[in-house]
Amino acid sequence: MKMQINILALCCLCLVFSVAVAVGPPTCPAENSGGCGDDEWQGEFFPEIPKIKYEGPNSKNHLAFKYYNPEEDWLRFSVAFWHTFRGTGGDPFGAPTKFWPWEDGTNSVAMAKRRMRANFEFINKLGVEFWCFHDRDIAPDGKTLEETNKNMDEVVALAKELQGSKIHPLWGTAQLFNHPRYMHGAATSPEVGVYAYAAAQVKKAMEVTHYLGGENYVFWGGREGYQTLLNTDMGKELDHLAKFLEAAANYKKKIGFNGTLLIEPKPRSLQSITTAAHFLRKYGLIDEFKLNIECNHATLSGHSCHHDVETARINGLLGNIDANSGDPQTGWDTDEFMTDIAEATKVMLSVVKNGGLAPGGLNFDAKLRRESTDVEDLFIAHISGMDTMARGLRNAAKLLEDGSLDELVKKRYQSFESEDGALIEAGKADFEYLEKKAIEWGEPKELAEMIFHSAL
Amino acid sequence: MKMQINILALCCLCLVFSVAVAVGPPTCPAENSGGCGDDEWQGEFFPEIPKIKYEGPNSKNHLAFKYYNPEEDWLRFSVAFWHTFRGTGGDPFGAPTKFWPWEDGTNSVAMAKRRMRANFEFINKLGVEFWCFHDRDIAPDGKTLEETNKNMDEVVALAKELQGSKIHPLWGTAQLFNHPRYMHGAATSPEVGVYAYAAAQVKKAMEVTHYLGGENYVFWGGREGYQTLLNTDMGKELDHLAKFLEAAANYKKKIGFNGTLLIEPKPRSLQSITTAAHFLRKYGLIDEFKLNIECNHATLSGHSCHHDVETARINGLLGNIDANSGDPQTGWDTDEFMTDIAEATKVMLSVVKNGGLAPGGLNFDAKLRRESTDVEDLFIAHISGMDTMARGLRNAAKLLEDGSLDELVKKRYQSFESEDGALIEAGKADFEYLEKKAIEWGEPKELAEMIFHSAL
Amino acid sequence: MKMQINILALCCLCLVFSVAVAVGPPTCPAENSGGCGDDEWQGEFFPEIPKIKYEGPNSKNHLAFKYYNPEEDWLRFSVAFWHTFRGTGGDPFGAPTKFWPWEDGTNSVAMAKRRMRANFEFINKLGVEFWCFHDRDIAPDGKTLEETNKNMDEVVALAKELQGSKIHPLWGTAQLFNHPRYMHGAATSPEVGVYAYAAAQVKKAMEVTHYLGGENYVFWGGREGYQTLLNTDMGKELDHLAKFLEAAANYKKKIGFNGTLLIEPKPRSLQSITTAAHFLRKYGLIDEFKLNIECNHATLSGHSCHHDVETARINGLLGNIDANSGDPQTGWDTDEFMTDIAEATKVMLSVVKNGGLAPGGLNFDAKLRRESTDVEDLFIAHISGMDTMARGLRNAAKLLEDGSLDELVKKRYQSFESEDGALIEAGKADFEYLEKKAIEWGEPKELAEMIFHSAL
Amino acid sequence: MKMQINILALCCLCLVFSVAVAVGPPTCPAENSGGCGDDEWQGEFFPEIPKIKYEGPNSKNHLAFKYYNPEEDWLRFSVAFWHTFRGTGGDPFGAPTKFWPWEDGTNSVAMAKRRMRANFEFINKLGVEFWCFHDRDIAPDGKTLEETNKNMDEVVALAKELQGSKIHPLWGTAQLFNHPRYMHGAATSPEVGVYAYAAAQVKKAMEVTHYLGGENYVFWGGREGYQTLLNTDMGKELDHLAKFLEAAANYKKKIGFNGTLLIEPKPRSLQSITTAAHFLRKYGLIDEFKLNIECNHATLSGHSCHHDVETARINGLLGNIDANSGDPQTGWDTDEFMTDIAEATKVMLSVVKNGGLAPGGLNFDAKLRRESTDVEDLFIAHISGMDTMARGLRNAAKLLEDGSLDELVKKRYQSFESEDGALIEAGKADFEYLEKKAIEWGEPKELAEMIFHSAL
Repeated sequence: MKMQINILALCCLCLVFSVAVAVGPPTCPAENSGGCGDDEWQGEFFPEIPKIKYEGPNSKNHLAFKYYNPEEDWLRFSVAFWHTFRGTGGDPFGAPTKFWPWEDGTNSVAMAKRRMRANFEFINKLGVEFWCFHDRDIAPDGKTLEETNKNMDEVVALAKELQGSKIHPLWGTAQLFNHPRYMHGAATSPEVGVYAYAAAQVKKAMEVTHYLGGENYVFWGGREGYQTLLNTDMGKELDHLAKFLEAAANYKKKIGFNGTLLIEPKPRSLQSITTAAHFLRKYGLIDEFKLNIECNHATLSGHSCHHDVETARINGLLGNIDANSGDPQTGWDTDEFMTDIAEATKVMLSVVKNGGLAPGGLNFDAKLRRESTDVEDLFIAHISGMDTMARGLRNAAKLLEDGSLDELVKKRYQSFESEDGALIEAGKADFEYLEKKAIEWGEPKELAEMIFHSAL
Repeated sequence: MKMQINILALCCLCLVFSVAVAVGPPTCPAENSGGCGDDEWQGEFFPEIPKIKYEGPNSKNHLAFKYYNPEEDWLRFSVAFWHTFRGTGGDPFGAPTKFWPWEDGTNSVAMAKRRMRANFEFINKLGVEFWCFHDRDIAPDGKTLEETNKNMDEVVALAKELQGSKIHPLWGTAQLFNHPRYMHGAATSPEVGVYAYAAAQVKKAMEVTHYLGGENYVFWGGREGYQTLLNTDMGKELDHLAKFLEAAANYKKKIGFNGTLLIEPKPRSLQSITTAAHFLRKYGLIDEFKLNIECNHATLSGHSCHHDVETARINGLLGNIDANSGDPQTGWDTDEFMTDIAEATKVMLSVVKNGGLAPGGLNFDAKLRRESTDVEDLFIAHISGMDTMARGLRNAAKLLEDGSLDELVKKRYQSFESEDGALIEAGKADFEYLEKKAIEWGEPKELAEMIFHSAL
Repeated sequence: MKMQINILALCCLCLVFSVAVAVGPPTCPAENSGGCGDDEWQGEFFPEIPKIKYEGPNSKNHLAFKYYNPEEDWLRFSVAFWHTFRGTGGDPFGAPTKFWPWEDGTNSVAMAKRRMRANFEFINKLGVEFWCFHDRDIAPDGKTLEETNKNMDEVVALAKELQGSKIHPLWGTAQLFNHPRYMHGAATSPEVGVYAYAAAQVKKAMEVTHYLGGENYVFWGGREGYQTLLNTDMGKELDHLAKFLEAAANYKKKIGFNGTLLIEPKPRSLQSITTAAHFLRKYGLIDEFKLNIECNHATLSGHSCHHDVETARINGLLGNIDANSGDPQTGWDTDEFMTDIAEATKVMLSVVKNGGLAPGGLNFDAKLRRESTDVEDLFIAHISGMDTMARGLRNAAKLLEDGSLDELVKKRYQSFESEDGALIEAGKADFEYLEKKAIEWGEPKELAEMIFHSAL
Repeated sequence: MKMQINILALCCLCLVFSVAVAVGPPTCPAENSGGCGDDEWQGEFFPEIPKIKYEGPNSKNHLAFKYYNPEEDWLRFSVAFWHTFRGTGGDPFGAPTKFWPWEDGTNSVAMAKRRMRANFEFINKLGVEFWCFHDRDIAPDGKTLEETNKNMDEVVALAKELQGSKIHPLWGTAQLFNHPRYMHGAATSPEVGVYAYAAAQVKKAMEVTHYLGGENYVFWGGREGYQTLLNTDMGKELDHLAKFLEAAANYKKKIGFNGTLLIEPKPRSLQSITTAAHFLRKYGLIDEFKLNIECNHATLSGHSCHHDVETARINGLLGNIDANSGDPQTGWDTDEFMTDIAEATKVMLSVVKNGGLAPGGLNFDAKLRRESTDVEDLFIAHISGMDTMARGLRNAAKLLEDGSLDELVKKRYQSFESEDGALIEAGKADFEYLEKKAIEWGEPKELAEMIFHSAL
């Protein structure tokens, strides 16, 4: 049983292992009779995969939860459409490696709809209730913005139907980074036309998210930032970004969307939690937005994920978590599923103190390795991520129940529960008073012996 | 002549080279007749070193300025007492290597006074008008706070006299990180007694800075931060820090000190410029404080120095610059003198746009390498840092005069000088208006051809 | 004039600046009359760009050399076909941005031939004499290996013709990383079929390089390495790699190719110069291979480029330099053109000490920024890189002529020119002899005073 | 019980927690009656601490092993004298914080002997059988080398007595980095006198290690390396280092010391495992030395600890492990006790495959945090490190017993168990043969479907 624990602890690796595992004949490969090439095809996409169940820590079944028990837990997991259904395994030095059987190599609306059916079969088999998406993940660009929006409407209508009553988006967002038009930024583009185009795209994405019952809307500025400061008016760009977000907040109200607006800090622009918070405060947006913390962005910015989650929490800005992780020896975002139990436990300590994350949740902004090319890997990866977070939550709950950590922290600060501590915290202890006290008290007590020795 | 340029570009190395260069007999070695062991000793500390002059780029004299011309430049350079007069060359793996001839191995008040005389001889020979210090650099701890303050008063009286009419502190500060009492923080210590002690120390340091005619006062929280979040109440600690700074701002007014209060962001606590700015905004301190940017802290936080200076500038928070630099392949602060002309030029572009730094300036928070053990190196290092910044300033001035960089930036954003740009910047372009415009305009113009090709 | 110097020093930025600069009507855009869609089209690809000339440091012409004088210099610059003609501007978050006018969106042989004509017009206008390529850059994959090889033969025949008598490859190489078949490695793949396929590909690439008069052949193991050690038999994989390289060395001899075989260390597998050297020594390949040093790989591995070049030199392994550079605040290879004069000078010091690089040279493994979409940028970037290296070379030459650096180094070690130094260097000073000497000599002389003080 | 697991997983923190825990009256504080100021004082140093016992995973006793069972395990743990008994808690920004009750503030021989008694009480209570040391940790410098050696002899005689029959050194080493004489290197110093001094020091340290029954001797070149390449003749320095090590190997034989000689790679000089291995091969020392792998050096060099241990293993060079770990977000060596179960498990997989480490072992080159100032923390830290490694070993054993990981690796490479695989591994498959095979086999089989889709 303890071995099982460690298999789990090592599971970012399992993803690769299963490469060699044979999978049954795909039900819907493009080379088949063609029925599956039809967007009306409604058979099973993952015929070899059963509904994933909780079997407890002793289970040796790769396709079962060992820690996440859907009946007990209150974690709000979300599948990320882009990594799970649009990830190709390509990287800067290599062509795509993943060719899922349901893909036909086109970017058509029909293909988009078939892919959406695969998404909901996946979600249902995994047993989660949330998904999230960028507008351009789920439906292809048309020749004009109107045509693009029409494409999206068609796919969204199907998604609405497939969601049923239990599933809906944790959040939606607009993809403002892939298209060349955004190479100089979206809301911070030096081109007014790009700014307007981005606004139109966000407008539509908010409408769609609202229509699907989404609980949040996310802003990730993948191209906001700069290539060189020398050609950049940073002040002007930030002003523009603020106007853009203000307009978004206004539009949200106009359409009656009650979801939370979330900003996602990223290395190289709104780099840290507090950089984003500063921006929101400076521009008077602090009451309209919360933050979406991505763990791999935290580590790339030189913080632990726990640090970023806790910093957001104490500033009242903890909205949602992109529960992924990076490689500590690698300088870019590897977006792996989280497998570090200790870090998951610490993150969950903050989450529990926050009273949970709702209406936010835990979104797997994580991808299969380039070498993982088997559909089963999609399930194994998510199961591993969910089990890691569930173990973290259970550990956190026990630590909080036990109370000794909190007790320790409380004791650490107990000297501030004095009359003088109260004066300080009320802003009533001025420097003259404090100097008088310092002289009266002499060297801080618990250090007396230390001081004695240092004077030898 | 061009070679000279490059010798300069490589000059962090020179520091090491001169190790082997013989220096004349020290005038005041401790082993001498003992006169110099006396704090009244007032001979020359650097008898081999003449007053440093400007000789222009063709000079081969190591002890001359090639770019910094005191007659022309308006840079406000400051010698940092701690590195220059208290740096020992010690590191985590090694004992001290520097044994300046005027040091007698004691930490007495007499030694502090002799060291202060060396400081002013150095400053005068170098030809700068500012110095800066931590309280504990310049005078030793006594057995009680009163005695410590008395020690400081004695040394400060001498400093006041030696300053004469032209020299004064760019800033003073309190050393709240070296003593074991601060190992858990100063203003963020969990011990109320430590908080009070730190307040008393800052109170005195502000008084002394004021007395000496200092133009700024700096807060560097070397121990504010945490070893582990698990024993830390981050919210409470930040609250305490805010109260502490509020009390400092109040005390400043009370004593009639008009200097600027500066916060120095550092990796691991108020990590970035915007983290510090967020803190100041959140706690209502944004009008009372500016920032002291340290270049090596910037790079350790994943930014260029230029980024941090410019970010402070556009937020109206650029107060002072610690002009040092780190090793890009090294993960800690090596606090080297800056030798990178390109970076110095960029920093100076921001400084010039800021209308200079006054009442702040450029402080050499930089130290000799462990292997540099010759007093001459102290001069060579400062000369190299000053020449680097002066070249940067001249380059920046020419770039700004030439105007093509600014022109380029202006052109880059010119589409916002339209009517619609004005609407956006005034916050009057809502998402519906922008969507209408996006549809009307079609794909952003300059990208039309690109789009055409991407659709092939 | 000095400003010019600094414009240069900042020129990685220029690349971006010229984005907005209008370029004349392209001569061969795909949308034109179609003549250019024909591979026989032989007009001008860069009609707006003249032959690049040396105009000296005072020139303000972006399309002229300020430092590189083809008449004087003996630098062996090479254009890298892949970045310059196959780079798309795409990145992990974004679609391609570059749509050169001669591209028709296909990957046909006809397109490959037209692209090759553009390459040679570029090389001739730039005035260099070398180019380098991966097999798959220059010609498309066919349905079988035979067909692929046939495609390559057709393109190579054209290249041979276009080379004329002065131009030839600095080196050729096989692209063993982009295709999915190599996702688990090439020579280190766990699949024997992939190993054989890679061997066949290298065999052909060596033949082609030889046919074109190439002076070197490079091995870059972009996928050799591992995703996780847990599924990897590192010992077996290195054994396979050694056998592969041994077979390559044998085949080289068989076909009478006299070019140098070069291994290119990269982060994550043969990470450092010495890792590669160790591999070569362990497997008895040290006399058959030299190294290709990439500057950006050096910095990603935690070294300066100078360190890696010098380390290769003292081991007799310096074969060629990929003269690019990275961003010190960025954790992946940004492959920028080198603009740091100080680093270029240091690298050139090693190159001159090496007696030059021939038959190797300086290859620009560097790419335009994503935002640079103008053909003129291709020239500006190369000019800037060439001028940087030429300045470095001139500086290095002057430093060596001047001799004071070498003198300093010589003096630093002069104590080893004693009799005892000679004994040590001859391996004849055993520990007992050295102990006797140490006792006889006492504390090392120049440290005597230091020791005295440390004992106080 | 599971909570216990996680407390452990988080235990680098515990070290800090116990700061506030009251400890009983020290038995031997310097201020006491003075008996303990006497080096003959032989009472208890840790009277509050019992012999540490194994109590199993359910125990809540901080002073008990939960995983390490001395009766079952075959791990060869070693206490590191320098961190545990000479660590002060000082850092570049702060004065020492630890004032152990047995320290009297002097660096006398008497103090050294009393400290040695504390060391053996610690070792006995912890229940380990190894310790390791630098020569200068255990005995103070005298005025001459002879006096220094005499000091050491006196302390070593006591150590020999206190060792008894069960305890002895895992290894000894010479401290060639702290003293200013070594600031330019020891075996790579440009001064022949420093080289000789270092040789004399190593000679004595080897003799002492031999006398105490040490099983290994370690070389850590803390100052071998360079400040700037510009004043360094890297080739000459490496030649000198090789001669030095050769002399050491000869002296070892001469005195009949059968221990293993170990080189410890470190960032900035013999940076990686393979850099060290290359050095040993190049200079013909590969059969005389093995490597001591430090985990925190591995991560600072951009590798995981597992990578370095495995790389040493497959090269037959795995000699010993410094079982510490760093902070992934921190760029210097924090030398923490290892608490990461997953990493410990992976390291142990390599150790088990190596057939254990003997005559090497696991040495805790790890230190208490600056804030840990209680003697109890010394025990808690070691217990946590030992439990982590013991859990790792148990996990590794189970994984190997279970066999599925090995099976997976074996299957991954099974295509090489064919006739053609055998030819390749025997070096008999030349490129022509392989090309023929590649054409015959067509695209590697398991990728056929992938290729099919990529061709769509």
